[in-house]
Amino acid sequence: MRYARVSVGGRAVWGRVEEDDIALLSASPLEEERPDVIGTLPRDAARWLPPVVPPVFYAVGMNYPRHIAHAARLGNAAAVMPDRPEVGYRANNALTGHLAPIVRPAAVEGRFEAEPELVAVIGRTLRHATPAEARAGVFGWTIGNDVSARTWQHQDRTFWRSKNSDTFKPMGPWIETDVDALAQKTTLRVNGVTHAEFATGDMVFDPFEYIVEITRHITMHPGDVLWMGAESTCAIAPGDTVDVEIGGIGVLSNPVHPEGNQS
Amino acid sequence: MRYARVSVGGRAVWGRVEEDDIALLSASPLEEERPDVIGTLPRDAARWLPPVVPPVFYAVGMNYPRHIAHAARLGNAAAVMPDRPEVGYRANNALTGHLAPIVRPAAVEGRFEAEPELVAVIGRTLRHATPAEARAGVFGWTIGNDVSARTWQHQDRTFWRSKNSDTFKPMGPWIETDVDALAQKTTLRVNGVTHAEFATGDMVFDPFEYIVEITRHITMHPGDVLWMGAESTCAIAPGDTVDVEIGGIGVLSNPVHPEGNQS
Repeated sequence: MRYARVSVGGRAVWGRVEEDDIALLSASPLEEERPDVIGTLPRDAARWLPPVVPPVFYAVGMNYPRHIAHAARLGNAAAVMPDRPEVGYRANNALTGHLAPIVRPAAVEGRFEAEPELVAVIGRTLRHATPAEARAGVFGWTIGNDVSARTWQHQDRTFWRSKNSDTFKPMGPWIETDVDALAQKTTLRVNGVTHAEFATGDMVFDPFEYIVEITRHITMHPGDVLWMGAESTCAIAPGDTVDVEIGGIGVLSNPVHPEGNQS
Repeated sequence: MRYARVSVGGRAVWGRVEEDDIALLSASPLEEERPDVIGTLPRDAARWLPPVVPPVFYAVGMNYPRHIAHAARLGNAAAVMPDRPEVGYRANNALTGHLAPIVRPAAVEGRFEAEPELVAVIGRTLRHATPAEARAGVFGWTIGNDVSARTWQHQDRTFWRSKNSDTFKPMGPWIETDVDALAQKTTLRVNGVTHAEFATGDMVFDPFEYIVEITRHITMHPGDVLWMGAESTCAIAPGDTVDVEIGGIGVLSNPVHPEGNQS
């Protein structure tokens, strides 16, 4: 099943995505197992929202061996192979949906990059989860683009503006519940040209290992998201269209706009 | 005015806190200017919840000159005077209310500390805020205790478990809308004994300077919270009761429990 959130008359409405249409739902499938169908929207007419606004927005940094080696070569002191699953955070203000613009701030100089990531969406309340409970606790999978302004990332004490400026976290287009997400391929394209391609599951620690570790100390809740990191990144600039595809899930596509042209 | 959230029959309900009672409200005062009164609860019977669950939970690290000097003496390499307002994040899972227990995880070793903090609660949608808009954009003020497990803080890449384990972020007891928060005194007491006392407003950058800087790149929303850092900290242990008082706002009081005794 594919679940999305779309804007209908300015309101966020959940939908089940079908071949040509979206069946609009009476409630979140994270809260009700069988929400009623309350309407239909042609899929082409959809204004896609981030498929969920998480209570907590978890993000994994260094999680692909080749990305760690690449960052180490560029002089990133934090680029060492992790010996246990450790997680960071992103902020909800930065979320935006499929087809919505990524806005590059006027003050950004230097490298401005896309990072294609698998995202696990939590479906249950989890604490002290076993590996089996962690697997059962994932409601489904979506796609994230961890847009990053590298100069700010190096200048600042935290990732506040380098990774959390408005529109820096496209997520979508929907949540796919029926896919073996770790057996897929992740592809990053700019203007139709492939710049990165890697095995989605080639991670240091997989999502279930993260959930087991996090929930030793932390309660995870339905709607929480866990972004799993990227193996490769590439530069993007205003005028580009950036696509992140993960097999079996879909394509998250966003144009890049300069600040002041957010139409 | 003092606004709180309390648990009534398992539901979170907003209330206006008065001398002996809480007037229960039909809606959040962050969403409706004059919500209806739908009932009354004796104040002594209240089960206090965090006064708001923020869309984004901002937290300032080094913001009191004496705290920075102290951390530098302890060998914290990040303890240098900031030259501009930079903000970090905490996670909603860690929030707990007034009088609820802070649970020290069984795996915590070494220093386990309380950090008494002023908290600004945002009341308007803010982007590119001027100093005057930043002032007008603060709905009110509450109190936070940024409980920290120092050994984890030093061992880990991020603050995930050192500052965001469940119950590590008591906030409350309420939001006070009519106080000159920066003219007050912050007091930290353990079992009635004062361990820290400082001028709340003796900050490197005040909340309005933070809001101006954050909103250059980020939209702040009603309900967002901004924790302002602490000048002094002190050790806490199971069996203790820790009180954070800020003049004109109130007292946030929490017992400390060992893990496995969360009653």
